[in-house]
Amino acid sequence: MRILVVNVNTTESITQAIARSAQSVAAPGTEIVGLTPYFGADSIEGNFESYLAAIAVMDRVMSYDQPFDAVIQAGYGEHGREGLQELLNVPVVDITDAAASTAMFLGHAYSVVTTLDRTVPLIEDRLKLSGLWDRCASVRASGLAVLELEHEPQRALEAIVHQAELAVTQDKAEVICLGCGGMAGLDEQIRQRTGVPVIDGVTAAVTIAESLVRLGLSTSKVRTYATPRPKNIIGWPQKFMR
Amino acid sequence: MRILVVNVNTTESITQAIARSAQSVAAPGTEIVGLTPYFGADSIEGNFESYLAAIAVMDRVMSYDQPFDAVIQAGYGEHGREGLQELLNVPVVDITDAAASTAMFLGHAYSVVTTLDRTVPLIEDRLKLSGLWDRCASVRASGLAVLELEHEPQRALEAIVHQAELAVTQDKAEVICLGCGGMAGLDEQIRQRTGVPVIDGVTAAVTIAESLVRLGLSTSKVRTYATPRPKNIIGWPQKFMR
Amino acid sequence: MRILVVNVNTTESITQAIARSAQSVAAPGTEIVGLTPYFGADSIEGNFESYLAAIAVMDRVMSYDQPFDAVIQAGYGEHGREGLQELLNVPVVDITDAAASTAMFLGHAYSVVTTLDRTVPLIEDRLKLSGLWDRCASVRASGLAVLELEHEPQRALEAIVHQAELAVTQDKAEVICLGCGGMAGLDEQIRQRTGVPVIDGVTAAVTIAESLVRLGLSTSKVRTYATPRPKNIIGWPQKFMR
Amino acid sequence: MRILVVNVNTTESITQAIARSAQSVAAPGTEIVGLTPYFGADSIEGNFESYLAAIAVMDRVMSYDQPFDAVIQAGYGEHGREGLQELLNVPVVDITDAAASTAMFLGHAYSVVTTLDRTVPLIEDRLKLSGLWDRCASVRASGLAVLELEHEPQRALEAIVHQAELAVTQDKAEVICLGCGGMAGLDEQIRQRTGVPVIDGVTAAVTIAESLVRLGLSTSKVRTYATPRPKNIIGWPQKFMR
Amino acid sequence: MRILVVNVNTTESITQAIARSAQSVAAPGTEIVGLTPYFGADSIEGNFESYLAAIAVMDRVMSYDQPFDAVIQAGYGEHGREGLQELLNVPVVDITDAAASTAMFLGHAYSVVTTLDRTVPLIEDRLKLSGLWDRCASVRASGLAVLELEHEPQRALEAIVHQAELAVTQDKAEVICLGCGGMAGLDEQIRQRTGVPVIDGVTAAVTIAESLVRLGLSTSKVRTYATPRPKNIIGWPQKFMR
Amino acid sequence: MRILVVNVNTTESITQAIARSAQSVAAPGTEIVGLTPYFGADSIEGNFESYLAAIAVMDRVMSYDQPFDAVIQAGYGEHGREGLQELLNVPVVDITDAAASTAMFLGHAYSVVTTLDRTVPLIEDRLKLSGLWDRCASVRASGLAVLELEHEPQRALEAIVHQAELAVTQDKAEVICLGCGGMAGLDEQIRQRTGVPVIDGVTAAVTIAESLVRLGLSTSKVRTYATPRPKNIIGWPQKFMR
Repeated sequence: MRILVVNVNTTESITQAIARSAQSVAAPGTEIVGLTPYFGADSIEGNFESYLAAIAVMDRVMSYDQPFDAVIQAGYGEHGREGLQELLNVPVVDITDAAASTAMFLGHAYSVVTTLDRTVPLIEDRLKLSGLWDRCASVRASGLAVLELEHEPQRALEAIVHQAELAVTQDKAEVICLGCGGMAGLDEQIRQRTGVPVIDGVTAAVTIAESLVRLGLSTSKVRTYATPRPKNIIGWPQKFMR
Repeated sequence: MRILVVNVNTTESITQAIARSAQSVAAPGTEIVGLTPYFGADSIEGNFESYLAAIAVMDRVMSYDQPFDAVIQAGYGEHGREGLQELLNVPVVDITDAAASTAMFLGHAYSVVTTLDRTVPLIEDRLKLSGLWDRCASVRASGLAVLELEHEPQRALEAIVHQAELAVTQDKAEVICLGCGGMAGLDEQIRQRTGVPVIDGVTAAVTIAESLVRLGLSTSKVRTYATPRPKNIIGWPQKFMR
Repeated sequence: MRILVVNVNTTESITQAIARSAQSVAAPGTEIVGLTPYFGADSIEGNFESYLAAIAVMDRVMSYDQPFDAVIQAGYGEHGREGLQELLNVPVVDITDAAASTAMFLGHAYSVVTTLDRTVPLIEDRLKLSGLWDRCASVRASGLAVLELEHEPQRALEAIVHQAELAVTQDKAEVICLGCGGMAGLDEQIRQRTGVPVIDGVTAAVTIAESLVRLGLSTSKVRTYATPRPKNIIGWPQKFMR
Repeated sequence: MRILVVNVNTTESITQAIARSAQSVAAPGTEIVGLTPYFGADSIEGNFESYLAAIAVMDRVMSYDQPFDAVIQAGYGEHGREGLQELLNVPVVDITDAAASTAMFLGHAYSVVTTLDRTVPLIEDRLKLSGLWDRCASVRASGLAVLELEHEPQRALEAIVHQAELAVTQDKAEVICLGCGGMAGLDEQIRQRTGVPVIDGVTAAVTIAESLVRLGLSTSKVRTYATPRPKNIIGWPQKFMR
Repeated sequence: MRILVVNVNTTESITQAIARSAQSVAAPGTEIVGLTPYFGADSIEGNFESYLAAIAVMDRVMSYDQPFDAVIQAGYGEHGREGLQELLNVPVVDITDAAASTAMFLGHAYSVVTTLDRTVPLIEDRLKLSGLWDRCASVRASGLAVLELEHEPQRALEAIVHQAELAVTQDKAEVICLGCGGMAGLDEQIRQRTGVPVIDGVTAAVTIAESLVRLGLSTSKVRTYATPRPKNIIGWPQKFMR
Repeated sequence: MRILVVNVNTTESITQAIARSAQSVAAPGTEIVGLTPYFGADSIEGNFESYLAAIAVMDRVMSYDQPFDAVIQAGYGEHGREGLQELLNVPVVDITDAAASTAMFLGHAYSVVTTLDRTVPLIEDRLKLSGLWDRCASVRASGLAVLELEHEPQRALEAIVHQAELAVTQDKAEVICLGCGGMAGLDEQIRQRTGVPVIDGVTAAVTIAESLVRLGLSTSKVRTYATPRPKNIIGWPQKFMR
């Protein structure tokens, strides 16, 4: 089974970290292919960048010329998953949904700890649209930008742990979701520090994607995610013009 | 005052119809500039096309090299408004929100009549995110594609009237919103046929945009719609790389 | 175009301030007529007074013997708008709805800053009934009574600014609505102090009322706001007995 | 114990029917006093009339010059209860709430069957504000006006039974609330016809009012229903000018 | 009229306190029978114990061999009420619902003060399922275990008063519900200390049960609470095997 | 890895069918152990039976004397999962949640098709408590009892297909969840007949349980599902008395 794990930003080192994290939980026989979009921002922290990433991720997946069994969109709270679901016949799993869905099996309420405060409303809105909001205790910002997670890992860890602790004590979260693809790999340390289950959306998404493939399930094509109708599409990206 | 009215698809004749409709209600001194995206699909009927339109609209607006006072995104239920709000300092009005917001001043509940059934969930989701869903009685599909509205106006009218009547009698709507930018101009005929107020989002958006400008109000920049942070953005569209 | 702007209390100086504020944003050719109810309380800070104002406002409007094109009910969170909508064929705009509806075009969430804590539930309930509650971050009380706004303007300003700042920093509001007709005119100062858009419902309502008139739209008469059926009405107010 | 049961309209025969119904379930020692407002409409079927009734009921209760222990507002879905709660120190029970609250002890979901379709949104809104909406399966209109219930009792019965049956079979209601004070006394017949519990709000309200008095409980005065602050109130009704 | 008041735990002294409290408000002619389950935990503070209590309460009621007119389940936020409603033809009142339902007649919002923090989600979930959640301002834990209420009444009182005060000042509750059957009898003291109505679910339930019996109302048998179908039931409890 | 799959009723043939279904999708190395409760009803179709099953399932799991890695509760819409989560340190997956959670990755809305109409409210309530209700289009009853599924498989298939088709065409479901453990194995046939993804909760739960184990995640113990406090528990079932 081959699963494409697509980063939403253009920072190659983050793609590699995500792919490593994904591979670490993949079942024997599952091949993880990490993909970096051909265009877009080096980190996604807002709507403009997120919309651009939506197209960039679709472009990168449609440009991939080998067979694959599932796609993971590895950005937390980003736009675009619905477009991929229309374009593809294989399952598409967004790490936002994967983490929240997994968290709900483990506790009565969960919180998300993300990067900058400005991204909180995007995450909240994506969770609402996915129908996974009811048991969300809070979405909290660590105050660190995506790239700071990379460059200052210890400071990032402390900031995330601090917000996770507030989520547990004040917001009554019983599970923490790491709210950024770039946090992949931090889950174990934060779990030790907070005493509650911590979910990395990337690894959760790998097991969900594998499960859907094993169960022979894929995106319903009857209405919302039906294949796009034939259209005249002008300009770029060329990959979409068929 | 100059207001950009941006079509979401690449069909020039629809842009012209929208602009005409917009100009018909504009106040003296308001200049309407109709813009067609440089790329994208000739009609938007799903998520992939809508996400592509989101970027294409931002690209078209950012490419416009004259001053302007407000922007209207003239697609019903499409993605992208939040990105424009980040990129611009002038007010941005989406016709989806404009129509619903206006409808709520006129009746206890409103319905939207749109084109294809597959676009209904997008509209519902956009209204939910905009906080304008509570008084929505239903979103109904006429079953006609966007371009059929253009080519078969009489058949389109009948199909829309039929759904509007069902919305009033069965769903208890008291106001009808026309759920497609391409329906601009049909409001009066449908009003006569159904006996309830009918709102064309384009004309509603013009008066709202003018009002915001007159009141000296524009998008809040403190959190969700703050200006994007400086980023390395590679590839296309060039207009975003500053 | 003539718009009646009806105060909800019997304090003439507040009516004048509201009318001045309304006139300041009115389009050329729009005549603002400020009206004070013939009976009721000199300030409205609770349900009894608000219900009395509901009837007093209807009485005052029905007593007005000249033609008019729209009515603005200039009390924040008060009862009665639905009754006016039944009695009239021209558009009716409540400043509670006008401010909230306008705020939603400018930010992801808004807060209202009002007078006394006891009026907060009324405002919340009115926003819920109007379907404008979803994006409300909070309704906060400055602790000052309506008439104190008049008599101690500087102290009022400070108290409102303080709550507005808390709304922005703690409740994550991105826009502030002034939650009292008597606050008309304070918006600019509060905007400067808080850095977020501040909306005065009176001026917002003027542009909305003008827009509805220009668009040829008025209250739907099919169900909730249908003209009252002929009834035997005894006693007072005489104006209703037709 | 003396309980005032206040009709919302000025039709004396309805007041008497309500009072008889109330007395029929009153505990030994409970005196029911039926009151008819001094002014207002002879039947309440919309917002204008309902707002007028709100004041008329307050006026009638405040004019009552004997001691009493509780007040029942005997109109289904009408305005005004909150005002009475402010003005009085004894418990106030609205039959809308009494019926819904009682229904929720008897089944998983309830429906209301009322008079005219135009009153349905008022009832829905009142139930929402009272926090009793979640388990409401539907509010259905029999199509008969309030006074037709009086004049054509058999036809009314059939129309109500028909809607009650639809509520049970289609909307999955397990309990029916009679949605008009004028339906008092029909519950037993409708119960026999539909096979589900049928609740008359007037009798339900009597037992609730008695219970509150026996438990020594009354309206909380800390915030929403605090006694009105001293105000200058001009004009009519005189009873309020203290 | 005979009402069974069933404790959910096996602590006989709590049963007696509950029964005394119930009898104190019972109408003349109402006989209160306090019942202690034959098995289960001596206090219920979590789901396992609560599910066990659900069966133990049903067992105890079905083992009672005298006629009775209504049943009160005297545990706050516990499972099982729906099962009793299926098994019995007389009304079943849970004190969780009784307190919340009563509170809503007295204030705009209510809070519950219960024992341990771990029981808060159970109470919240039970209120949600009962449709009584909308006007709940908060569920707060005093931090004392059920049996500590018995052994350290003064300390318990202080802890409950403290949380009740926070509920009023911070959460804007206007009424307090005592969130544990074992708190029966504390209501008057807490009312004096907090200045707001305080509701003991046991006494509220007695008046509601009496009211339903007097009104001739009982559980609807058409769907959710229909009598169980004949089944082969093996093992224990023997009382259910019929 | 060993996963206990616990039937909720005492019908051994259903246990075997469930276990076969579970084993059919289990990963290499996963051992499925099917367990039948020692007591309870031979089919669960209501609250009394479901509460009894809750205890019977806990009893059966606690009686199992070998190590295990996860537990699946294989009844659709039944009580008890929260109790198991308290008693165990390994993950607990209810097939109700597993099916709904999986469905949400495949379509914009899902429906459940279950057995008897009387069980619909239980399923709806369990989905609400699990926070998985928002995207539920409907819960529909086939009208067949649990044991009829066993004895009349072809008739059952037709009835389920009929309701599934209505769910897709009328309720706009894009995915169908089989709402009964006894439907295990029917998914493929129904998928072929309806053209939408069909989810059997048992197989979905197996992959979720395996995933949680692989990810090293289990139930959070900080609040709702903390291990029960030491209690005096009298009577039966003996397994709980420690």
